[in-house]
Amino acid sequence: MRPMTASPPNELRSAHGHRSVAHLKDHWYVLCTSSELRTRPLARTLMGTPLVLFRNANGEPGALLDRCPHRNVPLSMGSVEGAELQCGYHGWRFDTAGTCTTVPGLCGDPVDRARNVASHACKEQDGWVWVWGEPDSEPTREPYHPKAAGLKGYTEVRRTVDFEATLHATIENALDVPHTAFLHKGLFRGGREPVEIRAVVTRGADGAQVQYLDEPRPPGLAAKLLSPSGGVVTHYDRFWMPSISEVEYNIGTENHLVTTGICTPVDDFHTRIYAHVAFKLRLPGWLVAPVLQPIVMKIFNQDAWVLREQTAASERWDGEVYTSTELDLMGPQVWRLMRRSQQGRPAEDDDWSKEVRLRV
Amino acid sequence: MRPMTASPPNELRSAHGHRSVAHLKDHWYVLCTSSELRTRPLARTLMGTPLVLFRNANGEPGALLDRCPHRNVPLSMGSVEGAELQCGYHGWRFDTAGTCTTVPGLCGDPVDRARNVASHACKEQDGWVWVWGEPDSEPTREPYHPKAAGLKGYTEVRRTVDFEATLHATIENALDVPHTAFLHKGLFRGGREPVEIRAVVTRGADGAQVQYLDEPRPPGLAAKLLSPSGGVVTHYDRFWMPSISEVEYNIGTENHLVTTGICTPVDDFHTRIYAHVAFKLRLPGWLVAPVLQPIVMKIFNQDAWVLREQTAASERWDGEVYTSTELDLMGPQVWRLMRRSQQGRPAEDDDWSKEVRLRV
Amino acid sequence: MRPMTASPPNELRSAHGHRSVAHLKDHWYVLCTSSELRTRPLARTLMGTPLVLFRNANGEPGALLDRCPHRNVPLSMGSVEGAELQCGYHGWRFDTAGTCTTVPGLCGDPVDRARNVASHACKEQDGWVWVWGEPDSEPTREPYHPKAAGLKGYTEVRRTVDFEATLHATIENALDVPHTAFLHKGLFRGGREPVEIRAVVTRGADGAQVQYLDEPRPPGLAAKLLSPSGGVVTHYDRFWMPSISEVEYNIGTENHLVTTGICTPVDDFHTRIYAHVAFKLRLPGWLVAPVLQPIVMKIFNQDAWVLREQTAASERWDGEVYTSTELDLMGPQVWRLMRRSQQGRPAEDDDWSKEVRLRV
Repeated sequence: MRPMTASPPNELRSAHGHRSVAHLKDHWYVLCTSSELRTRPLARTLMGTPLVLFRNANGEPGALLDRCPHRNVPLSMGSVEGAELQCGYHGWRFDTAGTCTTVPGLCGDPVDRARNVASHACKEQDGWVWVWGEPDSEPTREPYHPKAAGLKGYTEVRRTVDFEATLHATIENALDVPHTAFLHKGLFRGGREPVEIRAVVTRGADGAQVQYLDEPRPPGLAAKLLSPSGGVVTHYDRFWMPSISEVEYNIGTENHLVTTGICTPVDDFHTRIYAHVAFKLRLPGWLVAPVLQPIVMKIFNQDAWVLREQTAASERWDGEVYTSTELDLMGPQVWRLMRRSQQGRPAEDDDWSKEVRLRV
Repeated sequence: MRPMTASPPNELRSAHGHRSVAHLKDHWYVLCTSSELRTRPLARTLMGTPLVLFRNANGEPGALLDRCPHRNVPLSMGSVEGAELQCGYHGWRFDTAGTCTTVPGLCGDPVDRARNVASHACKEQDGWVWVWGEPDSEPTREPYHPKAAGLKGYTEVRRTVDFEATLHATIENALDVPHTAFLHKGLFRGGREPVEIRAVVTRGADGAQVQYLDEPRPPGLAAKLLSPSGGVVTHYDRFWMPSISEVEYNIGTENHLVTTGICTPVDDFHTRIYAHVAFKLRLPGWLVAPVLQPIVMKIFNQDAWVLREQTAASERWDGEVYTSTELDLMGPQVWRLMRRSQQGRPAEDDDWSKEVRLRV
Repeated sequence: MRPMTASPPNELRSAHGHRSVAHLKDHWYVLCTSSELRTRPLARTLMGTPLVLFRNANGEPGALLDRCPHRNVPLSMGSVEGAELQCGYHGWRFDTAGTCTTVPGLCGDPVDRARNVASHACKEQDGWVWVWGEPDSEPTREPYHPKAAGLKGYTEVRRTVDFEATLHATIENALDVPHTAFLHKGLFRGGREPVEIRAVVTRGADGAQVQYLDEPRPPGLAAKLLSPSGGVVTHYDRFWMPSISEVEYNIGTENHLVTTGICTPVDDFHTRIYAHVAFKLRLPGWLVAPVLQPIVMKIFNQDAWVLREQTAASERWDGEVYTSTELDLMGPQVWRLMRRSQQGRPAEDDDWSKEVRLRV
């Protein structure tokens, strides 16, 4: 049956269906915080695949495909019994390796390969439960560790925020400077005459970085709180494959702020950010944190709003029809790294770098 | 335009699109109760096809395709005028045979084959309005008559329940024993150590049966009400093509209970059960019925919940990925009969039988 | 993934996907009233294409494709700054010709063909903002001017009404007489024995007309208000390509009523009518208007209801399965003109005419 909703005439679709979506499986992703995973199974989705999380007898997390092999009912509708996950329909039980150990009512041996369910490697680190993207395989690296997590003298704030956007669009937004003067007007940048500064973009095998040179202290409200006395600003925006954004600020000599976005591609058009903000400032953290938090959440809400519209546009126009300029410092680098990995091509050996002038 | 919702990566789809759906048209289906069909037309859907029901001048039911031939407006939006159904847009009228008898405003003869609408044979029996699945054709058999309907000394209870599930999944659930100890824990079976019993499965041309041997009296609450003094249990689960489930219990010498599910495939993933419970017990029916009804409805609600999730899984995974065991006594027999009929192959001549041991 | 909703079996789909939808671009369409377009950008959709309307420094309206070339965010989410439209994400600015004049932060020249956005010719006339359907092209004619708009002695009433229906179905409904006795029973026609009258249908290059001969004064309530003393009725229904319905009544010597429906094809299955009613009656306009308006709105609501069902039927049955009679005076003419234009065939030279007898 044909869809009855509005469809733009073909001649107006110039996107040819392209969308910046990649499924990068050989990586760790955060699926919940440690405190969310308690005595009940937890349903989560990773790159479109429903998973169920639970803890075994040692308290270690397990992640299985969220589908009972018997009649396909989600295992997350069941319960944790002892160290095993029990389906709510017929009571089949599974351990964290996905092995079916019990088929109630059956007189013979319950163990049978066909009754097992796919399992994902799990690791609990820094207060998050990390899950390896590829089922039934051994991780080949360690999860990412946020730069200033657990450091003495730092205040840490965590939030979970959902965006209706691709992983790529979410990370590009998180690491984009020019939009802050417009979308976040008054909160971040803007409010004075722009000055010309330099930005050095570098791309390596596993990530990319922008270093901003000659940047004045941002005049916005957030910056005033961070450093009342002003001072020299050093500012780096970084991307770590496949899903980490990192924004690092030093303002003056005593103010250090790192905002990390650990992104989970829930599905092609939904991204969850496990945000981690760590800072050491002249002002005490207990004073800054309650002021900073509503500002950060307002910024997140504005970004969520514009990204939702960007995603809707990609649906409406059958793909992305982007026109980038030299101000788009990070987005094209992020996509180049994602696409290369998705296509299974080896990372580029040599670091690449360029300098761009912009007005902020 | 591509769908923007989550889609599991291809390598996780192992179902290849199979779903246990059959459209079996040469059969009777209940579309409403007798009391529901009064002076107004009634919109119903059968195997995805919208139909309209109404009564003619003799009070006999008629069922037409719910689409006016003129501008396709549903006839169920119209009204019954005399013995005819009148469209609400331009007032065209149709009799129960689907013949257009009136085109208001037209100076010539209104009768014209192109203005007729497809009609289905109807029959009112046992308080239900039955409709033949094939349009414009003569029924080749009689509607099903519930075993203990209208029998002296029996109490009868009727309920209509909707399931978001295929006809096959609904009937498999209604005739499945092992799930009752888990999904309906405490209401039905469970609460004691399982004992090993035998089940004899038989499949004929028009249905299948499971006879349970050596079954102890169920320890659940419902069973206690049915037979306070205990006694020998005889228990049959039966399927009658294409859409009838029948569960028959004798407990002791004086307790007889038959639960019939007359199922209507509303569309591929919606099934309506016209449930009929008839019983003759040591306890008086006026005492048992009000206690039994909320228990039965709770069981229905739990089944509806798990079937809805099973259906959603079939959508999410692009089909069914079932792993059956020998405990799945009825489901595979039901599907074998449905599929054979759908494919137009003759029914198997010889009765087939096997014995299975299980723990209940 | 297969859709899980009800799908009628193939053998019941006789429509073969036909729907009376045409995209006629070389025409003017009303996208808003003059008073709706103030200081903020306005999102509108024309034939499935999202557009944004705003006013330039001279107060003249502009219409651009509602998609920023940079990251595809709708420009209607932005703001009007001076005479230009500014995107809400990165602050890019566009004039009414669609030229990008500003890229904030960029050190070089902002003007670049790739940064421009498609624009549509606009014209403000008779209190509506008209937009040319083809982007980046010069209009080849003038917008339609309602027959009795701005005439001395006439009372004018305007309403905007939305229909979930194709442009063709909406116009056919607006110009169809036989349904009024049923769908609008008591409000319009009906309530007396039908009389036989003649109708002369004429079709030219740019429109079609029905003239009704020998028509008695309608007995409904609306007609009584219009002409308490009765009198000879002259009645014309007209269609003007591609989207105008016009119903003109003279009742007696002093009563003249013209109802114009200026239709906008929002998308294939949504049509907005900018309705214009102009009348000069024996009764004073200030007395008639408040009585007439609720009746007209009730008629619109009934039409919206039936057209929504007609559209849903077209979706359900995978197209239109119409059976027309000689009473369908206008619908086939309207579709013939639309289809010919859509196919780019030249208009038929000779006027075509026929006479039909009908009972009203």
